[in-house]
Amino acid sequence: MSGVSNLRDKIDAPAIGHECHSFIAELFPICRSITGNGLRETLARIGKHIPLNIHEVPSGTQVFDWTVPREWNIRDAYVKNARGEKLIDFQKSNLHVVNYSVPVSARMPLSELKKHLFSSPEYPDRIPYRTSYYNETWGFCVSQRQMERLEDGEYEVRIDSTLENGSLTYGEFLLTGASEDEILISCHACHPSLCNDNLSGVALATFLAKSLMGCQPRYSYRFLFIPGTIGSITWLARNERNVHRIKHGLVLSCVGDRGKLSYKNSRQGNAEIDRAALHVLKHSGQDFNVADFSPYGNDERQYCSPGFDLPVGRLSRTPDGQFPEYHTSADDLSFVDASSLGDSFSKCVAMFEVLEENRVYVNQNPKCEPQLGKRGLYRTFGGYGDSQTRELAMLWVLNQSDGKNSLLDIAERSGLSFAAVSQAAEALQGSGLLRECEPAGERARAAAREMVRG
Amino acid sequence: MSGVSNLRDKIDAPAIGHECHSFIAELFPICRSITGNGLRETLARIGKHIPLNIHEVPSGTQVFDWTVPREWNIRDAYVKNARGEKLIDFQKSNLHVVNYSVPVSARMPLSELKKHLFSSPEYPDRIPYRTSYYNETWGFCVSQRQMERLEDGEYEVRIDSTLENGSLTYGEFLLTGASEDEILISCHACHPSLCNDNLSGVALATFLAKSLMGCQPRYSYRFLFIPGTIGSITWLARNERNVHRIKHGLVLSCVGDRGKLSYKNSRQGNAEIDRAALHVLKHSGQDFNVADFSPYGNDERQYCSPGFDLPVGRLSRTPDGQFPEYHTSADDLSFVDASSLGDSFSKCVAMFEVLEENRVYVNQNPKCEPQLGKRGLYRTFGGYGDSQTRELAMLWVLNQSDGKNSLLDIAERSGLSFAAVSQAAEALQGSGLLRECEPAGERARAAAREMVRG
Amino acid sequence: MSGVSNLRDKIDAPAIGHECHSFIAELFPICRSITGNGLRETLARIGKHIPLNIHEVPSGTQVFDWTVPREWNIRDAYVKNARGEKLIDFQKSNLHVVNYSVPVSARMPLSELKKHLFSSPEYPDRIPYRTSYYNETWGFCVSQRQMERLEDGEYEVRIDSTLENGSLTYGEFLLTGASEDEILISCHACHPSLCNDNLSGVALATFLAKSLMGCQPRYSYRFLFIPGTIGSITWLARNERNVHRIKHGLVLSCVGDRGKLSYKNSRQGNAEIDRAALHVLKHSGQDFNVADFSPYGNDERQYCSPGFDLPVGRLSRTPDGQFPEYHTSADDLSFVDASSLGDSFSKCVAMFEVLEENRVYVNQNPKCEPQLGKRGLYRTFGGYGDSQTRELAMLWVLNQSDGKNSLLDIAERSGLSFAAVSQAAEALQGSGLLRECEPAGERARAAAREMVRG
Repeated sequence: MSGVSNLRDKIDAPAIGHECHSFIAELFPICRSITGNGLRETLARIGKHIPLNIHEVPSGTQVFDWTVPREWNIRDAYVKNARGEKLIDFQKSNLHVVNYSVPVSARMPLSELKKHLFSSPEYPDRIPYRTSYYNETWGFCVSQRQMERLEDGEYEVRIDSTLENGSLTYGEFLLTGASEDEILISCHACHPSLCNDNLSGVALATFLAKSLMGCQPRYSYRFLFIPGTIGSITWLARNERNVHRIKHGLVLSCVGDRGKLSYKNSRQGNAEIDRAALHVLKHSGQDFNVADFSPYGNDERQYCSPGFDLPVGRLSRTPDGQFPEYHTSADDLSFVDASSLGDSFSKCVAMFEVLEENRVYVNQNPKCEPQLGKRGLYRTFGGYGDSQTRELAMLWVLNQSDGKNSLLDIAERSGLSFAAVSQAAEALQGSGLLRECEPAGERARAAAREMVRG
Repeated sequence: MSGVSNLRDKIDAPAIGHECHSFIAELFPICRSITGNGLRETLARIGKHIPLNIHEVPSGTQVFDWTVPREWNIRDAYVKNARGEKLIDFQKSNLHVVNYSVPVSARMPLSELKKHLFSSPEYPDRIPYRTSYYNETWGFCVSQRQMERLEDGEYEVRIDSTLENGSLTYGEFLLTGASEDEILISCHACHPSLCNDNLSGVALATFLAKSLMGCQPRYSYRFLFIPGTIGSITWLARNERNVHRIKHGLVLSCVGDRGKLSYKNSRQGNAEIDRAALHVLKHSGQDFNVADFSPYGNDERQYCSPGFDLPVGRLSRTPDGQFPEYHTSADDLSFVDASSLGDSFSKCVAMFEVLEENRVYVNQNPKCEPQLGKRGLYRTFGGYGDSQTRELAMLWVLNQSDGKNSLLDIAERSGLSFAAVSQAAEALQGSGLLRECEPAGERARAAAREMVRG
Repeated sequence: MSGVSNLRDKIDAPAIGHECHSFIAELFPICRSITGNGLRETLARIGKHIPLNIHEVPSGTQVFDWTVPREWNIRDAYVKNARGEKLIDFQKSNLHVVNYSVPVSARMPLSELKKHLFSSPEYPDRIPYRTSYYNETWGFCVSQRQMERLEDGEYEVRIDSTLENGSLTYGEFLLTGASEDEILISCHACHPSLCNDNLSGVALATFLAKSLMGCQPRYSYRFLFIPGTIGSITWLARNERNVHRIKHGLVLSCVGDRGKLSYKNSRQGNAEIDRAALHVLKHSGQDFNVADFSPYGNDERQYCSPGFDLPVGRLSRTPDGQFPEYHTSADDLSFVDASSLGDSFSKCVAMFEVLEENRVYVNQNPKCEPQLGKRGLYRTFGGYGDSQTRELAMLWVLNQSDGKNSLLDIAERSGLSFAAVSQAAEALQGSGLLRECEPAGERARAAAREMVRG
């Protein structure tokens, strides 16, 4: 059993869920954006848990069709009425300022101010979240009730921000496994005080990385904490030559709410990660949803662009845009839930286990069944599930292991859980009845090494 | 946007429906058959709308396994009782005479006459339609009520017909498009006073041809107005060397009744025409039916015979044999409906649009998404549907255009309408983000031309 | 029409069902096991119906991973109480002794005896069936009521059995057809007084063989009457070089109860036998079940092991383990039913007919339809079903016979019964409109013969 299987066996999901929730609470007040010190501060705090590499990419750098934007920082912002009362105050919620607002310091009548105010009449108590990354402007977001309370008169408007050459920051951690083949875990870390979208993803990725560090996994795991869209584009532009190592990937987004789990297939649609996710969700006994790929959503849009077409899916609970708290001040600490975060953690580890353990074997005794009894395998070995399931799993593995079917194929055809099938394979391999097929890629590399030596 | 897209945009379906219905009314009284002057007269009237080529194929010509039959013409026919009263009169309905009846002029008792009378007890007021093309005989068709009114006694029977060497006539119109590749539209024009089967098909084909004439389409469109079975066999026998140009085809039959649209797949079952038809019907918002291919029906039987296996489907409303008015005098002018004819017309044009516009593109910026905003494509271009659909359609086209997926593939995967996808592709091509793949066939032809020159 | 088609036409299913039931009654009292005289006696009685070859394989012979066990024979067995009354008596039911019990002759108290007694509290009147082939021990099986009646005291226990070097016996009959290609029919014949499992299979195989003997079939039919598991392993080990001749196969097990028919697919899942079985069951008008392959069940586990992967399915009514009478004294003569046995017989013959007649043809007149009328094929030939079905079947066969589709493919696509399609093909072949494709294998053999001569 691999380290990841051991990890799955030992998960204390409620405890991990609470750790995630506390970390979200720690990060919540920071005003993040796609560049700037809020993002830097966030990455620094992640770096206290895992050895994160921080990359700084200068403003103006060309990344494929895009340009790294100027860096945005903000110290304060408010709107005061004629009596000098702060009616809108950045210090109370960083959502009040349209993200990437240019500096402004002016007096204006309500009619003029209103052109720069955004509210959401549908949910009159919530402050909406707005950005304007690629169009220089400024604005404030307020609840509908705040909006309605504003009286005619002159207002003092101040946004103490800077938009200057600087850099785009992202964090990266490569956990080196036995193989150079990688599993990519990506989350966006650019939203200000919003919890499900996407501090939940940030916290989950952090604690997944931390837990895997003790596991000596077969795959290498690459964790990316990046600003949405421009971050994944920047990373891909700088790492184009190595993306072939990514064999599987997951974008983590909105993984902390109380909704059921939802997996979105990669563009390939039937990649191993897609099948692993489906298997884990199907055997979870919980309600779940699997959606087809669409080029709308998070950074999977970039990983799955046709020039890369990486096998990267997305795990969410309620996906972005599908819960009414989305992109409003209601996506707060009460909206995310320790138990849901713990469950998301467990499912990720279960998916990693499938990927780690999914091998192709060849039955060494392919003509008729081997006599399990004389090897002590018949109704006499311990471990997962009851003895009848164990025996059935061994018969399935023996019957299907012709060098073509992987353990996941066998789990799918048999209807058994991957863990049952994988444990049966381990027992059979221990008895010499099964031999692992060397993967084609490794055979090729071995041959290449031979050639260099020869 | 192509001429056919423009045509689809501008269709005045009710007006076209009325034109079709008027043309059906004009053709209704003519006594057609698989040869003869009734068919010639019909083709002459079609020829007033479109530049029809009339072909005459001599009786006795071998066409594959068949022989062009002798030509049948009829001037008059009746049955008189002893008092000289015309009880059955060809002048009142040409359905009264069994089509292809040999001439007869005789007196006989009712008992003898009855061997040559056909009625339909199930629908006692309807005259059934009967033919005897390949078995020389004669007969009269009457309503059951007429039949029952016949009293014992002597009858004068006269059919003033000729069955002599002559020719089989059919009409053909090739509307030349930008390409030699053809779309075949075929309808049978051999039935006497019957409207849905198949003056509806004749009228629809006529007005489709007329409308497409102003469109400068990409494909060439070949329209055939032929007698059923022997007509398509004759045409195929005479055009065997050029049928490879037919890339898509539709048989039009029973397209004027008030039933829902019904498409019958080609033998290939997943040909582009089959997929285009399904797409158009699915996105119509109307109830519809798609049937698997079967070797029973109209001229698709010949086009889809295994030696040709052309991608030819059939469009109907209620298919032949599935409405009780079928092959009776109740298939009259009241049974076909201008609005249904107009709807059939619209759907044909929509299918042609899919075929015309269905291209394969390559995303010129395949690594990550291009920045639509800086090209003015983001929430800022006009045309079809709302802006979110437009943006989504662009993202789908960019994501899927890897040189393998056609626009129809993309429409199917995305669930968007073909028009939305096609318009997105046009916008992206306009911005240089998309390049059309030269079709394999055209590449081969270009190479061949080079060789000839070289 | 082939001999097997004639057989299907003439089946007197009730009569065959009664013959099967009588034969089961004749074999019922014999105490069979996986070796020994009970099995020999059973094969001798089968041999009165068909020319069976009896094979004896010495104990200790290595067969793949297994060893042929020592031969077990038993003369008598009982348990007497202190008063000398036989409370458990092998002569009353051979199920009372655990099959393969070593000899024992001892006195012991009830507490000691009970360690060797097996009963089934769930069904207190039934004697369970138990074996211990690969673990030397002894035991008695009793009904729960018998168990409860046993009083404290001393018991005399005697099993007069032998477990010595000898041989494993099985019966084999090869009915030679026109081709060397074989259809395998296999049943296990090792169970003592149990009827559905599997005297029903033994009787059905016997009468299938007997009936096919007069048929001059195209395929050769190989019938195996073997002990379960070790028998099929032994046969495969001794016939490894010839198993490539097996093109289709059926394991017959539990085919006599009143349940609906149930077919279990081969490991291949879409083998011709799988499709033939599905076709026959689908067109039977009766309820049925088709199960996916699983490596659990009868001898199909060996035939479908990955080193052989033979296209062998399994036909049952209620499969083993799925009826409560399974492996108890309630699986007796009243549990199997003549009418069910007759029905199982009919379905096997219908499946064989599909396999026998399933050929690939080429339409000799592939361009347009041939004129059926001038060949007298149009609404004028007799035989199966009504004339419209006949005509439709001819059109389907002509349309689909392009050298790729078999008659079973055509039956599946058209929805017509295989018999209708096959009869249409016969009529068309008779008119010269169809030519059979020589199978690839026969072409290769003919070429090889040429080479040898040349």
